[in-house]
Amino acid sequence: MMRAALFTLALLAASAAQADTPEQRLAAAGLTLPPPNKPIGLYVPAARSGKLLFLAGHTECPIKATGKLGATMDVAAGKANAASVALCMLATLKAELGELSRVKRVVRVMGLVNATPEFTDHPAVMNGFSEVMTTAFGDAGKAPRTAAGAGSLPRGIPVEVEAVVELK
Amino acid sequence: MMRAALFTLALLAASAAQADTPEQRLAAAGLTLPPPNKPIGLYVPAARSGKLLFLAGHTECPIKATGKLGATMDVAAGKANAASVALCMLATLKAELGELSRVKRVVRVMGLVNATPEFTDHPAVMNGFSEVMTTAFGDAGKAPRTAAGAGSLPRGIPVEVEAVVELK
Amino acid sequence: MMRAALFTLALLAASAAQADTPEQRLAAAGLTLPPPNKPIGLYVPAARSGKLLFLAGHTECPIKATGKLGATMDVAAGKANAASVALCMLATLKAELGELSRVKRVVRVMGLVNATPEFTDHPAVMNGFSEVMTTAFGDAGKAPRTAAGAGSLPRGIPVEVEAVVELK
Repeated sequence: MMRAALFTLALLAASAAQADTPEQRLAAAGLTLPPPNKPIGLYVPAARSGKLLFLAGHTECPIKATGKLGATMDVAAGKANAASVALCMLATLKAELGELSRVKRVVRVMGLVNATPEFTDHPAVMNGFSEVMTTAFGDAGKAPRTAAGAGSLPRGIPVEVEAVVELK
Repeated sequence: MMRAALFTLALLAASAAQADTPEQRLAAAGLTLPPPNKPIGLYVPAARSGKLLFLAGHTECPIKATGKLGATMDVAAGKANAASVALCMLATLKAELGELSRVKRVVRVMGLVNATPEFTDHPAVMNGFSEVMTTAFGDAGKAPRTAAGAGSLPRGIPVEVEAVVELK
Repeated sequence: MMRAALFTLALLAASAAQADTPEQRLAAAGLTLPPPNKPIGLYVPAARSGKLLFLAGHTECPIKATGKLGATMDVAAGKANAASVALCMLATLKAELGELSRVKRVVRVMGLVNATPEFTDHPAVMNGFSEVMTTAFGDAGKAPRTAAGAGSLPRGIPVEVEAVVELK
């Protein structure tokens, strides 16, 4: 009896470890990946060189919200948009790699926040992006980050994020 | 006769294939590289690490136009300026590498457009850059791209583009 | 006597060569590294992939000055702030690497200057950063550089700089 119980416990533990993929962690947090943006015209969503995968400036996909922080969008809404951008980038990664577990770590994040000259809370907005990435990848989702204000962004979107990830 | 004609055809095809360098594709499109910008003072135009060549933020060379999209410059003029920036960057690549065919692909492009807070058409401006890069390199010139608005740029220029290319 | 003098000279030369570390060059220029910024919350100050070390967007550490170039801060003060940002980044490198001599060269610098739409002198501001990096690393501190205007920056800081260095 005791041995059988231990054996069952070991099986459960193994199953839990196997279950711990980025996709499952996102699902457990109630997060769903959108369909990725299609490669369009004169650029591509990602390009690999050696172990590095360079990712294009991402928006939410598809683009729904427009807004300027400090004027027409508040920090909470900006943070939610940044989270959507992260999900869009993860959708690109999933489409490129098949499995998100092929990401070793995020090595660079640059977040541009569409904001008025007086706005100062870019990090709080970008935390929406970083929270999703750490949900998916744990500490490997914590990257060196630049958060800055763009005077304007394509189509009036509130947030655009570019990144580089290292692959296993 | 037939054999001689086929042989001539084969020679022509081989010649066309040999002719297909980035430099010749640019020339066929009527595009001429300007003299590259000289390394100045405290920075350099490019730096190589392994297979990656990091390129400085480029302008047209030499700088002629100033302008702010949404105010003093329209999209067509901005797009033409972005094309000039691409030619300036290709001039740097040519000076660094000798032959543009040493570029395997462009892996990152960040285009900053000097624009008013209301401007939203940054991608159309940046297409001027991307069209020149695809003329030179074909699909290898299509890179992950970030297009964003800068509130201001050095000397009042309309477009500044930074890039990373992978070498063969 | 002659031999002893030459031997002493050789010892002195060897000592001078050994003395020529980035830390000693900074000290000779009267520059002191501040305590590095601590890793905070959802991002990290640096991440290594192969020979490349990606650095987060850096500010002076700790943040003291706020200001917008073209409005509330002049070029001289902006340049001094950019020099402080460089010292903060060097403090991060020192904390990450132990010895600054492990840096082979700086391969990318992007400097964002908080500025009004009319400001045009971003390179002069960023020279404050580049001067400190060349003091530390000599020609290896001259990197491909992008200097651009941000419409706004976190906490109202005047300068934010991101970089990539190649390690030996």
